[in-house]
Amino acid sequence: MTNNDTRPLVGIVMGSNSDWDVMSHAARMLKDFGVPFEARVVSAHRMPDEMFEYASSARSRGLRVIIAGAGGAAHLPGMIAAKCTLPVCGVPVPSKYLRGVDSLHSIVQMPKGVPVATFAIGEAGAANAALYAVQILSVEDAALEEKLAEFRVAQNAKARAMTLPVETL
Amino acid sequence: MTNNDTRPLVGIVMGSNSDWDVMSHAARMLKDFGVPFEARVVSAHRMPDEMFEYASSARSRGLRVIIAGAGGAAHLPGMIAAKCTLPVCGVPVPSKYLRGVDSLHSIVQMPKGVPVATFAIGEAGAANAALYAVQILSVEDAALEEKLAEFRVAQNAKARAMTLPVETL
Amino acid sequence: MTNNDTRPLVGIVMGSNSDWDVMSHAARMLKDFGVPFEARVVSAHRMPDEMFEYASSARSRGLRVIIAGAGGAAHLPGMIAAKCTLPVCGVPVPSKYLRGVDSLHSIVQMPKGVPVATFAIGEAGAANAALYAVQILSVEDAALEEKLAEFRVAQNAKARAMTLPVETL
Amino acid sequence: MTNNDTRPLVGIVMGSNSDWDVMSHAARMLKDFGVPFEARVVSAHRMPDEMFEYASSARSRGLRVIIAGAGGAAHLPGMIAAKCTLPVCGVPVPSKYLRGVDSLHSIVQMPKGVPVATFAIGEAGAANAALYAVQILSVEDAALEEKLAEFRVAQNAKARAMTLPVETL
Amino acid sequence: MTNNDTRPLVGIVMGSNSDWDVMSHAARMLKDFGVPFEARVVSAHRMPDEMFEYASSARSRGLRVIIAGAGGAAHLPGMIAAKCTLPVCGVPVPSKYLRGVDSLHSIVQMPKGVPVATFAIGEAGAANAALYAVQILSVEDAALEEKLAEFRVAQNAKARAMTLPVETL
Amino acid sequence: MTNNDTRPLVGIVMGSNSDWDVMSHAARMLKDFGVPFEARVVSAHRMPDEMFEYASSARSRGLRVIIAGAGGAAHLPGMIAAKCTLPVCGVPVPSKYLRGVDSLHSIVQMPKGVPVATFAIGEAGAANAALYAVQILSVEDAALEEKLAEFRVAQNAKARAMTLPVETL
Amino acid sequence: MTNNDTRPLVGIVMGSNSDWDVMSHAARMLKDFGVPFEARVVSAHRMPDEMFEYASSARSRGLRVIIAGAGGAAHLPGMIAAKCTLPVCGVPVPSKYLRGVDSLHSIVQMPKGVPVATFAIGEAGAANAALYAVQILSVEDAALEEKLAEFRVAQNAKARAMTLPVETL
Amino acid sequence: MTNNDTRPLVGIVMGSNSDWDVMSHAARMLKDFGVPFEARVVSAHRMPDEMFEYASSARSRGLRVIIAGAGGAAHLPGMIAAKCTLPVCGVPVPSKYLRGVDSLHSIVQMPKGVPVATFAIGEAGAANAALYAVQILSVEDAALEEKLAEFRVAQNAKARAMTLPVETL
Repeated sequence: MTNNDTRPLVGIVMGSNSDWDVMSHAARMLKDFGVPFEARVVSAHRMPDEMFEYASSARSRGLRVIIAGAGGAAHLPGMIAAKCTLPVCGVPVPSKYLRGVDSLHSIVQMPKGVPVATFAIGEAGAANAALYAVQILSVEDAALEEKLAEFRVAQNAKARAMTLPVETL
Repeated sequence: MTNNDTRPLVGIVMGSNSDWDVMSHAARMLKDFGVPFEARVVSAHRMPDEMFEYASSARSRGLRVIIAGAGGAAHLPGMIAAKCTLPVCGVPVPSKYLRGVDSLHSIVQMPKGVPVATFAIGEAGAANAALYAVQILSVEDAALEEKLAEFRVAQNAKARAMTLPVETL
Repeated sequence: MTNNDTRPLVGIVMGSNSDWDVMSHAARMLKDFGVPFEARVVSAHRMPDEMFEYASSARSRGLRVIIAGAGGAAHLPGMIAAKCTLPVCGVPVPSKYLRGVDSLHSIVQMPKGVPVATFAIGEAGAANAALYAVQILSVEDAALEEKLAEFRVAQNAKARAMTLPVETL
Repeated sequence: MTNNDTRPLVGIVMGSNSDWDVMSHAARMLKDFGVPFEARVVSAHRMPDEMFEYASSARSRGLRVIIAGAGGAAHLPGMIAAKCTLPVCGVPVPSKYLRGVDSLHSIVQMPKGVPVATFAIGEAGAANAALYAVQILSVEDAALEEKLAEFRVAQNAKARAMTLPVETL
Repeated sequence: MTNNDTRPLVGIVMGSNSDWDVMSHAARMLKDFGVPFEARVVSAHRMPDEMFEYASSARSRGLRVIIAGAGGAAHLPGMIAAKCTLPVCGVPVPSKYLRGVDSLHSIVQMPKGVPVATFAIGEAGAANAALYAVQILSVEDAALEEKLAEFRVAQNAKARAMTLPVETL
Repeated sequence: MTNNDTRPLVGIVMGSNSDWDVMSHAARMLKDFGVPFEARVVSAHRMPDEMFEYASSARSRGLRVIIAGAGGAAHLPGMIAAKCTLPVCGVPVPSKYLRGVDSLHSIVQMPKGVPVATFAIGEAGAANAALYAVQILSVEDAALEEKLAEFRVAQNAKARAMTLPVETL
Repeated sequence: MTNNDTRPLVGIVMGSNSDWDVMSHAARMLKDFGVPFEARVVSAHRMPDEMFEYASSARSRGLRVIIAGAGGAAHLPGMIAAKCTLPVCGVPVPSKYLRGVDSLHSIVQMPKGVPVATFAIGEAGAANAALYAVQILSVEDAALEEKLAEFRVAQNAKARAMTLPVETL
Repeated sequence: MTNNDTRPLVGIVMGSNSDWDVMSHAARMLKDFGVPFEARVVSAHRMPDEMFEYASSARSRGLRVIIAGAGGAAHLPGMIAAKCTLPVCGVPVPSKYLRGVDSLHSIVQMPKGVPVATFAIGEAGAANAALYAVQILSVEDAALEEKLAEFRVAQNAKARAMTLPVETL
């Protein structure tokens, strides 16, 4: 499930394929930056052994960052983090009734000793988790650093070009 | 760490010995009912492998109910539940700043397929998780059923005997 | 209203037939496991006497677990629990404006001495309450224990088989 | 436990004598207005039958308003209301960790058909529930109406007399 | 705007005619009980003087209970209560973004000395405020007391008659 | 982007043109009062330097009030305020999942020393921020004071003219 | 209660003298800036007529900004705003159990047409409301504008001078 | 303010020296891992220009990760992130009344395009932000990776050694 022939540097995992609508924003961002990644379903509650295996083998498989999305009692990011020392980026997937407040609490409130970097609820958080993964990789990768700078410039230009239909009031 | 020579029927686990102030209320209740139990620290985040081992061996070791207390991003009850099919009772331990709202969300909002029975935040929840474990055991144990009935009678009598110092107004 | 000729082991009650959309997920789960159950409307506020009668006769009628769903100021699970010592599983039904936060608080925050096992808000919680009832029954029923193990295996296989349309990005 | 020889018009009930610190503010207010009342512990969860008996006999015993205070999964006001058609005033008693948000939800979010008049969390709510009971009684009691008017005048005068130590800044 | 020729006993006020969708449930309930009422828009913020006039003349005009609905920073019930000693029933009208949590806080958290009886957010709360008004009037009106008893009996019968389509699972 | 040839007195800024649906309510209000204004996108996160330039030049450019709308981690109002001493009016734009609670917290909870005047979440808040800007300007502008008085009179008349379809119940 | 012989430009009002601990931070700030002010208790609920009189006479008495602090169902700022068109700054005073969330909702969620500028809960909000009043006055007062600039410079210098005891780790 | 002669790799910034009680947990963790760091007060609201200068020069000064702590309307982490592409770790410092819920919202809910990695409220979050910084650095530093593995082993051993005073029940 890798997006190209290169060995993936970032692993995207989520508890169910129903999380893809949100988590695809992470995959899209990595693709835009040309960062090789893999994406798969790894459920903390339904695939606990596979999850542990995924986490404990991640560094040796060449992954450098793991992005984990989950909703409700969102245990996936925290348990991945408990089983490896790679940076884990957690994305609170919105839940049906509590709208992701539960997911946010379950991901961000990790105890001392096992950190999970948490991002915004939903699509923006997924995209930002991936962007953050790129920023992590850029610390030792001048080409990525350059791409990030260009991304910021383009983003700035796009925002500056926004107009408002004041005349239609 | 069992409270007597009998093989424990209930396992009480918690993420840290700092949870004991709350979780001891569960242990006390089981002791009062004469239900053999064990109590130990099993941290989801700091002892993930031991946690999985604890959960997967629980039924074969004779446990019939597991009570798990945790605070913050409280993953312990849910991950125990993911690794065994015994009834798991989750106790949200109050957190320092969010006062257990985070713990409650992390425990109660489990996805379909892996249930955790959740009780009130703090001491009352710990005591009730244990009482619930006794109720579970009572389904097939007439003696425990009788003890529960007596507990209720005593509880009723104690409440009925409560007086209010109206005259001091 | 039992689902077969066998004497029901689990009673499902709810405050109104409008709760059926949620609570049917509990009934469906029990049916899938072949656990005989009954399901009926028992409103705490509109049928208080019938509710007490239901609860106090439950054990003698052969019930071993009661699943109670309610929304808003959800008193049904707690009052059933006050009138019998069978394990009661409470399901917070989502409310129109507060989306079930009120239901959750009204069910989970029971005082010491009268526990209600609480599950997630809505459909997932209803299904899990039933699954938990099966887990309770499995403590003394090897056949159910086996079915639960098979359920977990199937659930794991289903999750493992999930794929993500990464190529469509 | 009535405060004088007169038949009580208002019944104050609460789930435990630990609620007295809050609920005494209701009793004090009634005493100040000279409204005969009774105050006792009636626990919804530990004394369900006594609670029903209390509620169903209230009108015939001469009570005209019932004030019920409870904390956490606060079922007392709503269940009293389910068993009688007297006006019930509910007081959310603060809970240890959720500070009464749970109590408030459990009391105010009653379903259509069984109302509970809800007041503020804690002491102010208890005092106001009693004041409201006086207002209810005043509808047909000109003397009480007069006392209420005097109460308002005195309250206004007291507020107007308040000074601020601006000079000490 | 009274619903019949009789002098109204209950006044229903709301901040805007957009509140009518919710507040009409109060009017409907009073109509069903045959209690004469009036209903009008009285905005605390846009009609402050008319609001004070409404409140201060209410008792002398024959009103015995006032039902006030408002949303957001819902000041109407509390300010009506500040200007008269009739029982005021407050209905939190749902707000667009906070769904009535703001309305609930603004109505229920009144300070000691000026009570507002608060009911559930939205339609159920509006209906219950009216039902509560009937209960208040019933304290001195045996006919209304009788109607309330009949209402409860009918409500109980309706709930008891509810069936669940268990066979369609 | 000014709405007329006059030098603008009020600047309306927002983080994205997607905020216009909400923030246009501010522009409309200013237009109705004939207060010259400008409106443009100034993103705190994507245009930080432009934002600082905008804020630091605002007073010298003749602006007297700045209205800033933002959603989520809404930094725009507070950072504008950090860079100029003109009165800043902050409008919490509703966010997708948290519905503006996050925006409200991010705007209103400014530390001592750098105030932002905060208004309601969404359209009402945007309109009121503009109305407040007019009120600020009116302190030294008798004509605007007069217009405000007329606005209130018209608003009062409109509210008083509202009728309710009581007869259709 | 004015702080000097000059006619006050800012009025500080609060619901009770118990709010002074918080609201004195507003008075202190005005005093530091040399802005003449008055401070007094004006309770919305206990002094409704005085409150209306205060608000409606404020502009003619020379006030240019009103700062109003209140807690719980905090109606004071909004009702002042309903009765005058001066800029009103609202300060949510922390409440005992809900810690000011209720106060914040009751003040900030004003309906379209009657704005209240809302500041942070507690002391910081009180100080900032006063600072904001100074900023409003500075729009037409170059001397105050200068003082504000100096305040910012001093504030910046103070922050820059802060050191951290890193060596003591 | 660096902790040794080595050029710092991590910058710790906070809005005030009053945040040191919390943020010192980050510094302590970095010191324990031997990662050179600097720590200083950089206030977003009181030192906006210095903040921008700090952020925009961070990468060229050799920093690889920035840890930013702030409370209330916590803009520091997000504005630092807006001005540089290094990974920023945000720590929600608890606020006096809202206990850090406001800080959490202001930090975690960043819009798409400018990520901030957010950690738990308070001390645990500060320590974990630093640990996460170490994990980021470990991606390209085998010695740090080894230290992290040792940290986890020691943490596991410490948790496993925890005992509970069950015998004292």
